[in-house]
Amino acid sequence: MPKLVLVRHGQSEWNELNLFTGWVDCRLSATGEKEAKRAGELIKEAGIQADILYTSKLSRAIQTANIALDAADQLYIPVKRSWRLNERHYGDLQGKDKAESLKQFGKEKFQIYRRSFDVPPPVISEDSKWTQVGDIRYSDIDPACVPRTESLKLVIDRLLPYWQDEIAGDLLQGKTVLIAAHGNSLRALVKHLDGISDEEIAGLNIPTGIPLVYELDENLKPTKPAYYLDPEAAAAGAAAVAAQGTK
Amino acid sequence: MPKLVLVRHGQSEWNELNLFTGWVDCRLSATGEKEAKRAGELIKEAGIQADILYTSKLSRAIQTANIALDAADQLYIPVKRSWRLNERHYGDLQGKDKAESLKQFGKEKFQIYRRSFDVPPPVISEDSKWTQVGDIRYSDIDPACVPRTESLKLVIDRLLPYWQDEIAGDLLQGKTVLIAAHGNSLRALVKHLDGISDEEIAGLNIPTGIPLVYELDENLKPTKPAYYLDPEAAAAGAAAVAAQGTK
Repeated sequence: MPKLVLVRHGQSEWNELNLFTGWVDCRLSATGEKEAKRAGELIKEAGIQADILYTSKLSRAIQTANIALDAADQLYIPVKRSWRLNERHYGDLQGKDKAESLKQFGKEKFQIYRRSFDVPPPVISEDSKWTQVGDIRYSDIDPACVPRTESLKLVIDRLLPYWQDEIAGDLLQGKTVLIAAHGNSLRALVKHLDGISDEEIAGLNIPTGIPLVYELDENLKPTKPAYYLDPEAAAAGAAAVAAQGTK
Repeated sequence: MPKLVLVRHGQSEWNELNLFTGWVDCRLSATGEKEAKRAGELIKEAGIQADILYTSKLSRAIQTANIALDAADQLYIPVKRSWRLNERHYGDLQGKDKAESLKQFGKEKFQIYRRSFDVPPPVISEDSKWTQVGDIRYSDIDPACVPRTESLKLVIDRLLPYWQDEIAGDLLQGKTVLIAAHGNSLRALVKHLDGISDEEIAGLNIPTGIPLVYELDENLKPTKPAYYLDPEAAAAGAAAVAAQGTK
């Protein structure tokens, strides 16, 4: 039976500074490293044996996977990475302070940019220090694919082809697939797997560092509700993520 | 121009304990982690941009790569792993103390098992705690490939097909390839690349944690002698490796 394990990376240096990160490649904070280790310990304690790892192209997801697999004693599994698992591109918000952005755009627009399903933030300016246009790590894809802003809808649009062609293929072979990625790329995937509506997805918060397990049938439909390996910590973590919007 | 960068993993917990390791999956020691970080810093300082990483299936090589690429800010590159890059299987010596083995086998046999080109140590017994027969990390290869002992010659025999089919292909596309592996799998590769004779290879010692760079032509022949990114440390390191045999 195919099994899918999702891990959202823990705190990054920029989360700590309260900056919008998106595609900017910041690293995990010391807290984030601890969260990653705990994720690996939970995987090991649950007796989950991953057959393959997927990560985004961003260091904080890769660090999370490396630390977690080390803690789970599964460093040797094969790895695939794709920009399609990257965090949502935050457009002109990238690199900006969240509190300042709230002041700049006003509460209503700020909330739309953070949580609207299909309204992306303003595009990032070409001369921004935080654009990824021309970034060497995306030199092997069509340059038109490097976004200048994204809504959650656009994240789903670019994620699904990778799910359909790569990740699904491994699952359909009966493999246990581990994905280390980001708040919004994982929300996009959960929306797809659980059939969550465009309206309801705004209310879904995925906690950091706690593996979320899907058991799937031969059509890649969940055979039961997905579950966190540490449900209590997951509930507290999801509440903390939800509270971020009100800070 | 294709470029090949070889990194031998640093001190492991078992090196520290003076045990024969081979295919046993021990981790890096704190010293080994520092060596890995230094390797990454050297790669970054040299301005080397790796396009792809190859590792063995053993944690100490994977840890070395993860730490080095983190220090070099290149975590995002694609990764391939293969048992064909594993350390030499030390047969019945695996898990045994080096000083005790010297006493058990006598100086002559001990030196033959350590450094003979084509005489492998006695095969590991089936009930040894340190055999890899049945190990889940090799469950995706022909079970007949999991060795019970190996000479350097046998390492070359199992390494070359992977070099020819996988690594060479990436190099011939002009990529810069990073390999994080082990003393004997890297000696096997260096022997092949530099055309070192069966007799002379015994004298070749590769220091740990110092990237060795090959610049190759379109036939994958070195265009000049390979060089270490820190030649002084490399010379001291090679001497230290050579001295291990006399302890």
